[in-house]
Amino acid sequence: MKTLRMLFFAQSMIVLSFLTSHAQQRVEQWGRFEIAIHHTHTGNPFLDVRFSATFTGKDTTYTVAGFYDGNNTFKIRFMPQQTGTWKYTTSSNVSELNNETGSFECVKATGNNHGMVKVSDTYNFKYADGKQYYPFGTTAYAWTHMAQGVQDLTLRTLKNAGFNKVRMCVFPKNYDLVREEPELYPFLVKEVKKDPGGNDLTVWDYNQFNPLFFQHLEKRIDDLSALGIEADVILFHPYDRGRWGFDSMPEDINIRYIHYLTARISSFRNVWWSLANEFDYVRHRSRADWDLLAKTVVDSDPYRHLCSIHGSTAQYFEYWKPEFTHVSIQDEAPVTNFGGAAILRNAYFKPIIYDEVGYEGNLRNRWGRYSGEEMAYSVWMGLIGGTYVTHGESFMFRDHRDTIFWAKGGEFKGTSWKRVAFLRKIMEEGPGPLELADISRDHHTATAGKGYYIVYFGKEMNDTWLFDLPDKNGRFERPKPGTRFRVEIIDTWDMTIQPYPITFEVTRVIDYRLYDKDFKKVRLPLKPYMALRITETR
Amino acid sequence: MKTLRMLFFAQSMIVLSFLTSHAQQRVEQWGRFEIAIHHTHTGNPFLDVRFSATFTGKDTTYTVAGFYDGNNTFKIRFMPQQTGTWKYTTSSNVSELNNETGSFECVKATGNNHGMVKVSDTYNFKYADGKQYYPFGTTAYAWTHMAQGVQDLTLRTLKNAGFNKVRMCVFPKNYDLVREEPELYPFLVKEVKKDPGGNDLTVWDYNQFNPLFFQHLEKRIDDLSALGIEADVILFHPYDRGRWGFDSMPEDINIRYIHYLTARISSFRNVWWSLANEFDYVRHRSRADWDLLAKTVVDSDPYRHLCSIHGSTAQYFEYWKPEFTHVSIQDEAPVTNFGGAAILRNAYFKPIIYDEVGYEGNLRNRWGRYSGEEMAYSVWMGLIGGTYVTHGESFMFRDHRDTIFWAKGGEFKGTSWKRVAFLRKIMEEGPGPLELADISRDHHTATAGKGYYIVYFGKEMNDTWLFDLPDKNGRFERPKPGTRFRVEIIDTWDMTIQPYPITFEVTRVIDYRLYDKDFKKVRLPLKPYMALRITETR
Repeated sequence: MKTLRMLFFAQSMIVLSFLTSHAQQRVEQWGRFEIAIHHTHTGNPFLDVRFSATFTGKDTTYTVAGFYDGNNTFKIRFMPQQTGTWKYTTSSNVSELNNETGSFECVKATGNNHGMVKVSDTYNFKYADGKQYYPFGTTAYAWTHMAQGVQDLTLRTLKNAGFNKVRMCVFPKNYDLVREEPELYPFLVKEVKKDPGGNDLTVWDYNQFNPLFFQHLEKRIDDLSALGIEADVILFHPYDRGRWGFDSMPEDINIRYIHYLTARISSFRNVWWSLANEFDYVRHRSRADWDLLAKTVVDSDPYRHLCSIHGSTAQYFEYWKPEFTHVSIQDEAPVTNFGGAAILRNAYFKPIIYDEVGYEGNLRNRWGRYSGEEMAYSVWMGLIGGTYVTHGESFMFRDHRDTIFWAKGGEFKGTSWKRVAFLRKIMEEGPGPLELADISRDHHTATAGKGYYIVYFGKEMNDTWLFDLPDKNGRFERPKPGTRFRVEIIDTWDMTIQPYPITFEVTRVIDYRLYDKDFKKVRLPLKPYMALRITETR
Repeated sequence: MKTLRMLFFAQSMIVLSFLTSHAQQRVEQWGRFEIAIHHTHTGNPFLDVRFSATFTGKDTTYTVAGFYDGNNTFKIRFMPQQTGTWKYTTSSNVSELNNETGSFECVKATGNNHGMVKVSDTYNFKYADGKQYYPFGTTAYAWTHMAQGVQDLTLRTLKNAGFNKVRMCVFPKNYDLVREEPELYPFLVKEVKKDPGGNDLTVWDYNQFNPLFFQHLEKRIDDLSALGIEADVILFHPYDRGRWGFDSMPEDINIRYIHYLTARISSFRNVWWSLANEFDYVRHRSRADWDLLAKTVVDSDPYRHLCSIHGSTAQYFEYWKPEFTHVSIQDEAPVTNFGGAAILRNAYFKPIIYDEVGYEGNLRNRWGRYSGEEMAYSVWMGLIGGTYVTHGESFMFRDHRDTIFWAKGGEFKGTSWKRVAFLRKIMEEGPGPLELADISRDHHTATAGKGYYIVYFGKEMNDTWLFDLPDKNGRFERPKPGTRFRVEIIDTWDMTIQPYPITFEVTRVIDYRLYDKDFKKVRLPLKPYMALRITETR
């Protein structure tokens, strides 16, 4: 028996249509088109069956791998990049799955569907439709492995916060502070043995994925998509420690897992690939091994999602390699003092994300006890240098059963998350990404184009600021004498923006700077974490 | 007529011996063996003649290019890397230069001949004989193009300073502050035309090198070698501005020039290749063009001298490429505040040299008006982060005819050069190169192994320092509770080292740090630029 189903997804809404293969479906650009074919395979459907489809649009062709989704169902998912008619033909070593043809109509995206996020102007990001994307991420490594109620709470929290990216692991996490047993596992169980201590030890059947595990992950990625949040999906991490063994699978299983995962979720427009969290803590895996895994991911992804890899403190990968679209680093050094953040832009010619600079929290570990002020300061320090910093929270009030957001999600308990939302709003109101106006010479003044500056004072407390702008203006046009500027005082902590009552007019360049013609000053409230927004006016 | 001469160089002393081809010469390891053959070539000896030799030692073979040195003399120079007998056979398309054979005996190096400097333990340098080399360089871009008296003065100055590397250009320099006409040019003159303004315009005969120009350069490189100074030879730079045109030669002439230069001076053990100064200011030359030139240098250098390329402020090259042995950057940002210097170690996995962070001087330009304190501070800031910073001086007291050391050499007029010598002495007394003991967390404490720390306070002024060391100790063994340490107070500006009268004994780790068992403090003089040397004692 064989039925052909097509599914399409508008935003995160899933609309199932049972139709004949020749009906013309409508799928949004960067939406998801799915072919599902029922077929009862005698043998191992994960290993024996090769299944793919070729999709041809106006001027491009994609070959997309399929996968076995359990219940005698084989699927192929496709994310159309262009509008218009797409035709497909399946290919398989199983005749029932082979040479199925059909087509669908790809229509313009609607609502908050802006397409995949891609690298833009070397150091930044845009959605496929051209809308600027500034990554303001947070971290919830194992949130999809918590109790359903906690997962739902996490989504509600994220809905009301200002984050547009979440770093999250495929595999569950085993750590002093995260001991929850997940409900679902990525593989079926082969047997349960006793370890020398008499405890149960699960032996996985690496020949059989557990589709329910992946369906759940997919639902959560779609849930994030509905909130406009990118899923920075972490494929491997070291925090298993012999409990499940997903950090120490044989290399061929790692590769099989990548093939299966990419076949399933490459068509999800909000997916980013993060090869690993703290790659260097994964035992017995060399940088060359990671290279192979990274190549496997990229070669298996028809759409070239954003892709990076993340190490422990100050352990950088060779981010210049073509597999990596951006830099994802654990390091607080570049955002601790002025002058650090921009250095890695100069080095890599790719967007820089400091994906772990520490966490706002109250843990004993130094990585988990930043004040809210320090966390918010770090995010600002990155932004001013033309880079991006990911937020995280690690508050534990009782014991490890607390929902520490960093790993489990739940609710935010800190103070910085609101400041990140405030900053995101400022960025999204601005004309574009920031970069230092006078690189290496002025670490406080960022520009986003002609006549737009953000000056950040960090921990400095000033009662006045002599109005002066650098003559240099990044890659943009320099300010002309006679230009008038208005100033707003941003209290990055109290989240206020106060227009300053007077305007300033710059005169000729004096020693690399432009001052107001009367050398007027801006009065400041002698508090830390102040910034200025300076915009050209008439 | 054909005569065969062999020349060998012990240190910088040149001993000429007129001998038959079968005599056994003695040349020091990393010294220079030279074959010189007289032959009158009818045609262009620079273009028509291919000339090389194969040198075979115990277990290695080198093929070395020869060159035409004028006066009907063709030469091949060779730097033996191992002791023992070396045999050679020449090869040429000119029968008189072809198939000449001979041998020489390579003997152990003596005196200050430690061989070529090579990369050691990823981030640092050693001479070929294993002696550690810490680059403490200075800058005299066009010193070999000044009047002879100034050149001699430069050498006397360098003899009495503490520098062991000089950045210097092959081509002369034309800049507001450097207008001296050189005595020698790398090419012969084809004709002298008048430019539209009626001024003389020299047209070079790119088909004919001027051997005298290169012989002079070689003498100066040997002069530096005699002083134990490496010559960081800059092959191209933008500061020509239409005066001679050496910044805008056709690409095939650039490559011919590299072949000629490398044939002449690859055998000089103290040569480093710097492809360019401020590569990005050279007009009409892309990064791909620089790639080709870098490959040409490396392919033409049988010994693989250190090789890098240098851009303008914050313009980094792709230093991960295999042609580059180390990073040579113009950027003050990494050494301005704590936390910056080590970042590029993490990124590149190569030694980092900040080869232009600014100059101590009194120019109007901001790059040329550092105080001596700031220059010395920059060098210390680099060292503490496990990187190296090059010194430079730009004092002008009257006008551009002043000998500004930065370009011309002459005498030092500043104050930082002595502090660099003082720091070099400290480094050379220590057990090895520095690295941060607790990377990204403690930017002040560098380690050079078990029981050896340098703590640098920079501009901070402290009246006490609570004795505490990080638990982490870079790649070295961590300090054990019960270990006793003595402390010396280093005044990096006044150049004093004062032993502290009491010893300290560390106890167990408390929150990532080891304190003295009685929480004893070190009394400090409340001055900036202080450092501590902390060494294990019994």
